Amino acid sequence: MNIAMLGSGFIGRFYADSIQGYRSKDKIVSIYSRKEESAKKFAADYKVAFVATSMEEAIARPEVQVVCIALPNNLHEEAVMLCCKHKKAVITTKPLGRNAAEAERMLIAVEKAGIFNGYLEDLVYTPKFIKANDSVKKGALGRILWAKSRETHPGPHSDWFWDIEQAGGGCILDLGCHCVEITRSYIGKDIKPIEVMCWADTQVKPIDAEDHAIGLIKYENGAIAQFEVSWTFRGGMDLRDEVAGTDGTIWINNFLRTGFEMFTAGGKKGYVAEKAETEKGWLFPVGDEVTELGYNHMFADMFNSFDGKKNPMEGFYDGYIVNEIMDACYRSAKSKKWEPVDLKVWRGLEKAAPISGVREYDKDHLFVKEEILPDGRTKIILKEKKTGRIIQKEK
Amino acid sequence: MNIAMLGSGFIGRFYADSIQGYRSKDKIVSIYSRKEESAKKFAADYKVAFVATSMEEAIARPEVQVVCIALPNNLHEEAVMLCCKHKKAVITTKPLGRNAAEAERMLIAVEKAGIFNGYLEDLVYTPKFIKANDSVKKGALGRILWAKSRETHPGPHSDWFWDIEQAGGGCILDLGCHCVEITRSYIGKDIKPIEVMCWADTQVKPIDAEDHAIGLIKYENGAIAQFEVSWTFRGGMDLRDEVAGTDGTIWINNFLRTGFEMFTAGGKKGYVAEKAETEKGWLFPVGDEVTELGYNHMFADMFNSFDGKKNPMEGFYDGYIVNEIMDACYRSAKSKKWEPVDLKVWRGLEKAAPISGVREYDKDHLFVKEEILPDGRTKIILKEKKTGRIIQKEK
Amino acid sequence: MNIAMLGSGFIGRFYADSIQGYRSKDKIVSIYSRKEESAKKFAADYKVAFVATSMEEAIARPEVQVVCIALPNNLHEEAVMLCCKHKKAVITTKPLGRNAAEAERMLIAVEKAGIFNGYLEDLVYTPKFIKANDSVKKGALGRILWAKSRETHPGPHSDWFWDIEQAGGGCILDLGCHCVEITRSYIGKDIKPIEVMCWADTQVKPIDAEDHAIGLIKYENGAIAQFEVSWTFRGGMDLRDEVAGTDGTIWINNFLRTGFEMFTAGGKKGYVAEKAETEKGWLFPVGDEVTELGYNHMFADMFNSFDGKKNPMEGFYDGYIVNEIMDACYRSAKSKKWEPVDLKVWRGLEKAAPISGVREYDKDHLFVKEEILPDGRTKIILKEKKTGRIIQKEK
Amino acid sequence: MNIAMLGSGFIGRFYADSIQGYRSKDKIVSIYSRKEESAKKFAADYKVAFVATSMEEAIARPEVQVVCIALPNNLHEEAVMLCCKHKKAVITTKPLGRNAAEAERMLIAVEKAGIFNGYLEDLVYTPKFIKANDSVKKGALGRILWAKSRETHPGPHSDWFWDIEQAGGGCILDLGCHCVEITRSYIGKDIKPIEVMCWADTQVKPIDAEDHAIGLIKYENGAIAQFEVSWTFRGGMDLRDEVAGTDGTIWINNFLRTGFEMFTAGGKKGYVAEKAETEKGWLFPVGDEVTELGYNHMFADMFNSFDGKKNPMEGFYDGYIVNEIMDACYRSAKSKKWEPVDLKVWRGLEKAAPISGVREYDKDHLFVKEEILPDGRTKIILKEKKTGRIIQKEK
Repeated sequence: MNIAMLGSGFIGRFYADSIQGYRSKDKIVSIYSRKEESAKKFAADYKVAFVATSMEEAIARPEVQVVCIALPNNLHEEAVMLCCKHKKAVITTKPLGRNAAEAERMLIAVEKAGIFNGYLEDLVYTPKFIKANDSVKKGALGRILWAKSRETHPGPHSDWFWDIEQAGGGCILDLGCHCVEITRSYIGKDIKPIEVMCWADTQVKPIDAEDHAIGLIKYENGAIAQFEVSWTFRGGMDLRDEVAGTDGTIWINNFLRTGFEMFTAGGKKGYVAEKAETEKGWLFPVGDEVTELGYNHMFADMFNSFDGKKNPMEGFYDGYIVNEIMDACYRSAKSKKWEPVDLKVWRGLEKAAPISGVREYDKDHLFVKEEILPDGRTKIILKEKKTGRIIQKEK
Repeated sequence: MNIAMLGSGFIGRFYADSIQGYRSKDKIVSIYSRKEESAKKFAADYKVAFVATSMEEAIARPEVQVVCIALPNNLHEEAVMLCCKHKKAVITTKPLGRNAAEAERMLIAVEKAGIFNGYLEDLVYTPKFIKANDSVKKGALGRILWAKSRETHPGPHSDWFWDIEQAGGGCILDLGCHCVEITRSYIGKDIKPIEVMCWADTQVKPIDAEDHAIGLIKYENGAIAQFEVSWTFRGGMDLRDEVAGTDGTIWINNFLRTGFEMFTAGGKKGYVAEKAETEKGWLFPVGDEVTELGYNHMFADMFNSFDGKKNPMEGFYDGYIVNEIMDACYRSAKSKKWEPVDLKVWRGLEKAAPISGVREYDKDHLFVKEEILPDGRTKIILKEKKTGRIIQKEK
Repeated sequence: MNIAMLGSGFIGRFYADSIQGYRSKDKIVSIYSRKEESAKKFAADYKVAFVATSMEEAIARPEVQVVCIALPNNLHEEAVMLCCKHKKAVITTKPLGRNAAEAERMLIAVEKAGIFNGYLEDLVYTPKFIKANDSVKKGALGRILWAKSRETHPGPHSDWFWDIEQAGGGCILDLGCHCVEITRSYIGKDIKPIEVMCWADTQVKPIDAEDHAIGLIKYENGAIAQFEVSWTFRGGMDLRDEVAGTDGTIWINNFLRTGFEMFTAGGKKGYVAEKAETEKGWLFPVGDEVTELGYNHMFADMFNSFDGKKNPMEGFYDGYIVNEIMDACYRSAKSKKWEPVDLKVWRGLEKAAPISGVREYDKDHLFVKEEILPDGRTKIILKEKKTGRIIQKEK
Repeated sequence: MNIAMLGSGFIGRFYADSIQGYRSKDKIVSIYSRKEESAKKFAADYKVAFVATSMEEAIARPEVQVVCIALPNNLHEEAVMLCCKHKKAVITTKPLGRNAAEAERMLIAVEKAGIFNGYLEDLVYTPKFIKANDSVKKGALGRILWAKSRETHPGPHSDWFWDIEQAGGGCILDLGCHCVEITRSYIGKDIKPIEVMCWADTQVKPIDAEDHAIGLIKYENGAIAQFEVSWTFRGGMDLRDEVAGTDGTIWINNFLRTGFEMFTAGGKKGYVAEKAETEKGWLFPVGDEVTELGYNHMFADMFNSFDGKKNPMEGFYDGYIVNEIMDACYRSAKSKKWEPVDLKVWRGLEKAAPISGVREYDKDHLFVKEEILPDGRTKIILKEKKTGRIIQKEK
């Protein structure tokens, strides 16, 4: 695959490490950056043949098959439109747009142009998520009741994230987009998100956007999603997801506790892990960030789908849904009420059956609970169907 | 100390194990249960001299110094009033009342009677919480921004919990009371809780009360508390607390991951731990539940305070505040809006200073963020005071 | 219980915190220290009535029921002999002697004097060990094949530990005594330890004794124990035990990973936990060290046994066995061969049956192994009884 | 890269998943298996053009650039000799030989033939090991004192492993080869292994080889390596490595605790993870086994080295060293003494400087220890250079 990379910053480099990593047959053939120096350094580091400070030039090259957008949020729409113009397949970093209106325009444009489109939501491509969601889909947890995703760290690495005009928002837009798609995937991408409740505040940082937010998303079948996002967290990059159903639960720690623990009294200078805060004492590095953060599986899905003329797991449509949910969150944070998710485009189930976990015990009773007591007896709690009374007995 | 125990069920027995455990000088001298057989068994097991099926008789005994209420929620008020009548010191299990009105009446009654009163909120007495909160109070985490407490399990062990009339509510009342007081303690018991937002639903169990709820509590200084409570969780008893401030974070796992891991292919029958669900495979027992759940430190504080004529760490006043917050949660779950906490009694700060974490970098700039990049460079992000512009530079 | 405490240092204070902790009815009534100032400070802190700089005076007081030895290793024998002379019950800190000869003399003396004797091996009284060993004894792990105990930290807190004359040895004697008794308890205190292999070296510290050692202890039934001890470890106090049998395993982390994790950027000065090395970054405090290290359960067993005229779980006999095993370790470290454990006193089984885990599959085959393969097939591996051939088939 | 795969079993398939995974440009072009059916199934699953039941035919194909040996241990030498004959680059699974004599013959043969040779020791290519060893080499732990590797599970998946003739040994040869190379890499591949002590027994399985072993390897500079290997472990596949130095420690859990925890009451049938033992209760899957077990980084190093005409990180020479160390272990298990490692080929340092951690405190004292006490005082322990006396003082 021949790729044009738009953007030579932190995320562009992470993408390049993945795309050209291991024994890859894929190649970045064109690099665009606003700053020539940065583009040239990128080209030298990743052996890229063509360097451009014009976005359109980088895209239009005949050898380019797929354009990968790794730009600040405010430049996504312009880049996507150029891909439509030149009929190039396009994959774009998260979030798709700064808001749902932008995302919707991009979705309509790529579909009208008939080009392959992928949404680079890496955190639903982590090896752990893929296996966990596979278990969920096979029913290992029963019916899903709740999914939660937490992404907090001490704040992003580039200036533009902190500027509400370029970024479009604060930590909800930067981190919440991951959480929304992770929890939506666990609950089921076919199930309609109905309404949201969100608290957001600027507790610490001298910025206009929120630096801390907590949100709830109610789905049509009664399942509930939860996110916790923050740029105020101290201690590294905290990426933890959980999902619970009628029959079980999954806990994932993607970054800070992965079975790799190091104590060093010495404190050798250098990079430990993304957003690590110390170089001394107990540290928790990640083996291979590019893999653990999902990049390898994500690009494999994107390029294999392109080769196979299929849709990737995550497309612009998904990015659009995520933007609509986040827009509703911003409205709720202001109105202090639950706010409906206003989906102009919806391709899932029109009417989802309610999750309902009530279990029959025998013909006269519903099952409530069974527990072994410290003295070894087993107590069972039931509801009488006729009277509605709760009773208990020993088993 | 001579104690009258009211209630001979699960919690009464746990309390007795703690009160008469180790090398204790304290003694249960009187036991009340509605069921004579249960009272007699309790008396035999714990060598209690006096057995009663009349609550008042159990309380009124002259040798009784402290009455310990371990009864269903709907019987707390009656028991407290009898203690007031007989001028006996009283300590009562959580929650104080089924609602704030009950709690307020109890608070007023004990204070009018001038009797010692203690609120048995064990989870702010766990060894981990005590040490963690001590670190928080000493400033190890800076200013507290967020505190969260999660208590979920597959549902309570006795029938009355599941009956909304006797219990007064579902998992919010049963489990949320812990979470509210844990997070309130981290944020500061002097800081006024202002308003709450709560989602509650009955997702699985055939009952009238909620079996799953998530809530947010906003404090006057801008700090936010969060609770997650459920009777639908599968996997054991999940008690996890977290707190984060401008300078750090604490993560506590009280029950399911405490450094004790066991795999057994055999599955010998018997009690593993409170609300454990399996007897085979990987199990996570707790060393000494009575200690780990805080009972030992709690009763030590209660009885030492009584001896020393001081107030214990947790009194009826605290129980009342918790009930008011939970009442607001129930209102919010219905109204789908943030609801004010309506405190008729408040003894903390009248006006708390807002937490504010903005840090000056130099005379022209505010500090936003510093990060080491994968290539070893250190980037620093600042806000220009004059222009409000976000800039970045290498250090 | 009225206790005379001999020694007012680190360990004496830990013991006092435990003995007089919670709601204890026990009381230290007499304190001995070589240094008057230290004895007086101890007496003031713990409200001890009688202060002595003569060991015998402290012991001989008529109100003293039990003498607790918390002295350097080289003073144990003298103190024990004085207890024999005055017919006082005696409990002594670990190790019992500096070597088996000392330990044997003490054992013979207390038995001849007919006095109650307890060996303060706290780490077989931790709440985790007690519950784990209870599971082992109930058969949850099947037949025990291997037990391992690791105790490493950056070195002891008092000068005398580092002096081979006073201490009698290095980290084997200081830490190995714990490991030996933990693993012996898991394997079965009735099973005879037969021979040992030990590596020991002085890798880091400027001392005459060993600062790092690894040992193996073979038991008569074929079970194997393993210890890892060191004063060179960096990162805090690492206390981890494991035990494995034919049906399962238990992993215990007593100190560094107990479900309590703290990140602090601030680094407030002060005590974090025993042998913690940093005050900044990720820290792992322990909720209540006195409980977690086993002191509370240990003293409860000691004093309850004394009251009930029973032997405690750990007596001088156990201390003697441990010293014999350690002596053999020191011999092996020099000879570079397995060395026999030379028990002059043995009260366990004279002939233990060999553990043997071979399981019959059907009348023609012995069971070797069953495994689910990545493609979902289940493969079973068997040994033909007649031919001895290993075969595999799908299930 | 065009690869001939010899062997179509469990390990051959794992290798193929890695070699042709993600977006790889590498291709298996020839597959050999003794069983035609198995070879054909492999060819179908991995789209391999050429199928052979003759080893030589599979190797000799002109399009083959590299031969990958994934055969039982007793067939390695034959396969290597054929590669020499046909001058094909060869990479072989672990262990290199059934013993050092086989390994030495293979080493001499490939060097004489002048062919590229790689040793597929995957566990020094896991993402965690690579990063950990990088930290070690940069000095984050100071001078390395001790390294330990544990690999235990309930036994291998194929019949031939259990047959001592085909396998050459038991769990030492199967699992110990990993542990030896992991610990040797941490200590330094330039440092000569001098002597070993090993305990080995057949505790559970009805086989001739050992099913449980523990070994120590002493290096010339005084560092010590430790391995624990077993086919009797219950609970899954336990892969844990540790390394400690004068300034720190690293703990790695490769498989059973990687931040992925699942509870399922349901127990859906199917593959959870390599050597998982249950399908119910708490399970600990691994995100992506092929990555976590090091296959991806291993083949990338092999093929990139071949392309770049460099030696890979692990070659036949390393495999030979490992075999020599294991041979010494088998001798020690019989002789019950430390046995020398008898290296006929050695390419590291001829004389390594002893590790020595003694630190000067001031001109008159050596540093022993510093510790914060529970009462907040800081105690420092020193050795007087002149007198050799250990002293302590407050800081």
